[in-house]
Amino acid sequence: MSAGELLGQIADVGRDTRRGGYSRHAFDAPERELRTWFVERAQRLGLDVETDRNGNLWAWWGAPGPDAVVTGSHLDSVPGGGAFDGPLGVSSALDAVESLQDKGFRPAKPVAVVVFAEEEGGRFGVPCLGSRLLTGSIDADRALALRDPDGVTFAEAAAATGLDAGRVGADPERLGLIGRFVELHVEQGRGLIDLGSPVAVGSSVIAHGRWRFSFTGQGNHAGATRIADRADPMLPAAGTVLAVRRLARGREDARATVGRLVPTPGGTNVIASTVDLWLDARVPGAETPELVEEITVAAREAAGSEGCELAVTRESYSGDVVFDEPLRRALGEWLGGPPELPTGAGHDAAILAGFVPSGMLYVRNPTGISHAPDEFAEDADVAAGARALTEVLERLAK
Amino acid sequence: MSAGELLGQIADVGRDTRRGGYSRHAFDAPERELRTWFVERAQRLGLDVETDRNGNLWAWWGAPGPDAVVTGSHLDSVPGGGAFDGPLGVSSALDAVESLQDKGFRPAKPVAVVVFAEEEGGRFGVPCLGSRLLTGSIDADRALALRDPDGVTFAEAAAATGLDAGRVGADPERLGLIGRFVELHVEQGRGLIDLGSPVAVGSSVIAHGRWRFSFTGQGNHAGATRIADRADPMLPAAGTVLAVRRLARGREDARATVGRLVPTPGGTNVIASTVDLWLDARVPGAETPELVEEITVAAREAAGSEGCELAVTRESYSGDVVFDEPLRRALGEWLGGPPELPTGAGHDAAILAGFVPSGMLYVRNPTGISHAPDEFAEDADVAAGARALTEVLERLAK
Repeated sequence: MSAGELLGQIADVGRDTRRGGYSRHAFDAPERELRTWFVERAQRLGLDVETDRNGNLWAWWGAPGPDAVVTGSHLDSVPGGGAFDGPLGVSSALDAVESLQDKGFRPAKPVAVVVFAEEEGGRFGVPCLGSRLLTGSIDADRALALRDPDGVTFAEAAAATGLDAGRVGADPERLGLIGRFVELHVEQGRGLIDLGSPVAVGSSVIAHGRWRFSFTGQGNHAGATRIADRADPMLPAAGTVLAVRRLARGREDARATVGRLVPTPGGTNVIASTVDLWLDARVPGAETPELVEEITVAAREAAGSEGCELAVTRESYSGDVVFDEPLRRALGEWLGGPPELPTGAGHDAAILAGFVPSGMLYVRNPTGISHAPDEFAEDADVAAGARALTEVLERLAK
Repeated sequence: MSAGELLGQIADVGRDTRRGGYSRHAFDAPERELRTWFVERAQRLGLDVETDRNGNLWAWWGAPGPDAVVTGSHLDSVPGGGAFDGPLGVSSALDAVESLQDKGFRPAKPVAVVVFAEEEGGRFGVPCLGSRLLTGSIDADRALALRDPDGVTFAEAAAATGLDAGRVGADPERLGLIGRFVELHVEQGRGLIDLGSPVAVGSSVIAHGRWRFSFTGQGNHAGATRIADRADPMLPAAGTVLAVRRLARGREDARATVGRLVPTPGGTNVIASTVDLWLDARVPGAETPELVEEITVAAREAAGSEGCELAVTRESYSGDVVFDEPLRRALGEWLGGPPELPTGAGHDAAILAGFVPSGMLYVRNPTGISHAPDEFAEDADVAAGARALTEVLERLAK
């Protein structure tokens, strides 16, 4: 079954009627339905599927062993996300394995298709949580204590799906099996439109992270409280949103975003007592922490002038990643010289790149829009991506 | 049972562990529990309890009839509200009826204790919904179509509690029974602290209303989208929050607040596609609509400069209310000349004031904080308020 047909099978899972698009979050009902679907599809190809200690799924073609050729992506989405971000890489991997089987290819190395858990951080706040845990890039205790917006911990959610919370954490044995990791992903900006190619090879991922800014003031009545008596945390939060844009403009190619902002208690006739906002910041080089520091200074000043307190928490951070040079060169040769593309988007492949030779393939997105319902890939480009991944797996596994 | 003891009985109903304080919203489980409690308490006093066509509860002492003396308040809260806003007036009314019964008073007129539905507008967005419907101040069809944040309509929620949605709306017969309406309420600002009195008589309520500002941009990936390619509705929303404060400062005694702001989809790594914010604005005289117009102009300019669209919807509006002059004078005489107090807070009594002679008593709040967990009244002041209401009911009903 082709990658496009596989995507068609899951087109109704996790639709978000309020936001549009899809909401499929780690271990929630739609994501569990997708996991069941993946297991069933992989088993039809004769693959052996297992769940690792961190909730990542592994479908093995051949006995698990060292120097394995691993591909895959994730099935979770951002809230109200698109159909391709994640599932395209998983579907293309299943498509590629089936194509190789159909032509009678016998891999000389173990091949695995992996589905990483909580890549978006849409439920517990830390992106690439499954690959960070696998590689020991996040402390297990910190991960287990992460809470979703309803207060459920990762430990509780994992236990509810049968994971042993006591075994969550770095998995060096499994990590040691990976010889090469290649992730195919829909392109999330306008890069491939401008380059006129259906497929590109990933060159680098710019440094990025998430910071939580918590402003605390004094909740009170919106009608009975004089302006002069207020300590309204919505004011410095708004000032910070504007500072984020202003300061990001001051650095070439910086991206900085506030997409999530939560006033508490959140009543129309109530001055908020606290406002939490999340900053997503990405600048090439070491500039991301510098930019965040500038934003923090502005936020602290705004908080002070309203009589509010500010606490800033770094929730995640990844430095610049340049994908493995020999693997990139090989991918380029095997695929006839497609363009190379840097990206501002984080990926599990960028986490793994710190531990094993890793690379990425991007598939053109004609809207240039991602993390939103308009995210798209043409059928012909989806097919071109699957063909490219098939070629790469055959070269790597022979 | 005293008002303080009655409040003690419900001190555990609807506690909000996340926000602090109480979340008791129209027809939700805690508010229904409070209704059941009210019915039981009223029946113990021999009162006949009925639910009117709009979900307001009426407990009658004597047969329902014209020229009735009506008192009461509400049991719902803002999200994360205090213990006194609403329940103090209901508890004091039950206390006053019991005190009059204990001393053998026989009212010459019907007396009723009323509990109005959805006074805060915390669930369906329009404050004083029960009294607005009773008086025909809101169109029944508009009220029935109001939705809570989960998308449940007022019609659906009302039907679920046994109300006939077809009968929701103006109730002139019932309104015609009310001879005088007096509401006791916790004071919501610092007014009574400064005046050194446990009780005050309400003089006026300044004009107030709620407006929804909906900014629409283009949802997209927070890392892959260049700043120059963005139409991020969070930017004009933040600019509007700051404009609200700046423009409110420009008018004497204006209050304007953004306490609720919802980005959609609300993911950390997602540029929002829409941001809704709610403006609560209150200025004496006809200035409220003028202020909102100034804010709208600023919001529209901010939206335009980010390539976003703006839609503004008025969700509710009430003009200035001055309470009935003869009743105010009588209340002052009977209570030995307490201070008179204007307020920026809306109340059911202010809605009824347009139709029947209405008045208010305020009980001192030593924190000056309301719509928040720190809202408070000393036991002695609660008792003083109940005594004052007892005196007023006896004078009005004899």
